[in-house]
Amino acid sequence: MASDLISFSNPVFAQYAFYSGVVLCKTMDMSLLTVYYRLKNKVFINPEDNPGGKVTPNDPDVERIRRCHLNDLENVVPFVLIGGLYVLTGPSAHAAALHFRIFAAARIFHTISYLFALPQPCRALSFVVGYMATASMAVNVIRSGVM
Amino acid sequence: MASDLISFSNPVFAQYAFYSGVVLCKTMDMSLLTVYYRLKNKVFINPEDNPGGKVTPNDPDVERIRRCHLNDLENVVPFVLIGGLYVLTGPSAHAAALHFRIFAAARIFHTISYLFALPQPCRALSFVVGYMATASMAVNVIRSGVM
Amino acid sequence: MASDLISFSNPVFAQYAFYSGVVLCKTMDMSLLTVYYRLKNKVFINPEDNPGGKVTPNDPDVERIRRCHLNDLENVVPFVLIGGLYVLTGPSAHAAALHFRIFAAARIFHTISYLFALPQPCRALSFVVGYMATASMAVNVIRSGVM
Repeated sequence: MASDLISFSNPVFAQYAFYSGVVLCKTMDMSLLTVYYRLKNKVFINPEDNPGGKVTPNDPDVERIRRCHLNDLENVVPFVLIGGLYVLTGPSAHAAALHFRIFAAARIFHTISYLFALPQPCRALSFVVGYMATASMAVNVIRSGVM
Repeated sequence: MASDLISFSNPVFAQYAFYSGVVLCKTMDMSLLTVYYRLKNKVFINPEDNPGGKVTPNDPDVERIRRCHLNDLENVVPFVLIGGLYVLTGPSAHAAALHFRIFAAARIFHTISYLFALPQPCRALSFVVGYMATASMAVNVIRSGVM
Repeated sequence: MASDLISFSNPVFAQYAFYSGVVLCKTMDMSLLTVYYRLKNKVFINPEDNPGGKVTPNDPDVERIRRCHLNDLENVVPFVLIGGLYVLTGPSAHAAALHFRIFAAARIFHTISYLFALPQPCRALSFVVGYMATASMAVNVIRSGVM
């Protein structure tokens, strides 16, 4: 019965939940890193965060983390949403694990590439690999939706 | 049984999955368009993307696509999240299809309005129509949640 | 049976759906507030929004709401995604209600702190409390995913 697909007793779902939890936590950690660099570099964006001091809109370190965080939102959130629908299409455990692991590895490498400013095409490649994993699942979801 | 609602054998869910897949892919395509315009207009935001060259923070073409992408994140992601909960409230197939189709059409027209800078109120109207579709589903979800 | 967990007949799920609907609507309301302040302060970011007039990229009121909106996306969306997986781990009704209520209250107080520029640590504390609620659920999800 299809509804049993959405359960931790389904190994595909358990894998999906595990990797979704990991990449969402990784995304949320960007917030903590932003706070750390705002305090370290003393760059505050809101007047109430630095009473009597000044507001600094553009700090290179903080803006780099912000861009990495936004890129995560743009890619990790669609992965989790499409991944959940993909689990319901009843993929093989092997194919599903491949999608989830490739995506998670690509995004972790993307974050490392971004934060340490690794030379291109490190970041570009990790972005494309993660993107392809989500797109491949999306094709399965859309195809299951029309049939 | 309520749990059968989340299955591709439920026509309402299949429609939800199809339209969610479409609008999420549309959102993710904004990334590719951003990359295309960054390369075409030679505007790079990270030093490592253009070694020896300069960083250009504000290009009108790229910023327009970025705003469109962010607007999608602000609207498409809530649609998919609330839509999934809405499917579980057991709506009629007719009402559900209406919500999903109106939202998808509105967001596609919103993107066209944004990217081609169509005169207002094209973009404003498409934004409002998509917003109302999600809000209408949210009312159903919140009402089902309290009862 | 695990699949019955995702149903409005499960009180934990009904609570999850209710609070998810509330915080997502709160997030989407930031769009309306942005539009209101753009019209009130006459600050337009797209040339087609103000034909014959000028474009004003940085208005303090609008930028404050935009930051609040982005912070919501960064925190509310992970809450809803992780919360849905958390419901499937079969938490006690008491523990689940605690997580959902604390998160919702923290985010509503975060918005008030941000929009009215309340002195710190109002906003910082409400951010941390909401963050901890989501992180606590994420730990449960990841642990259920590996076992």
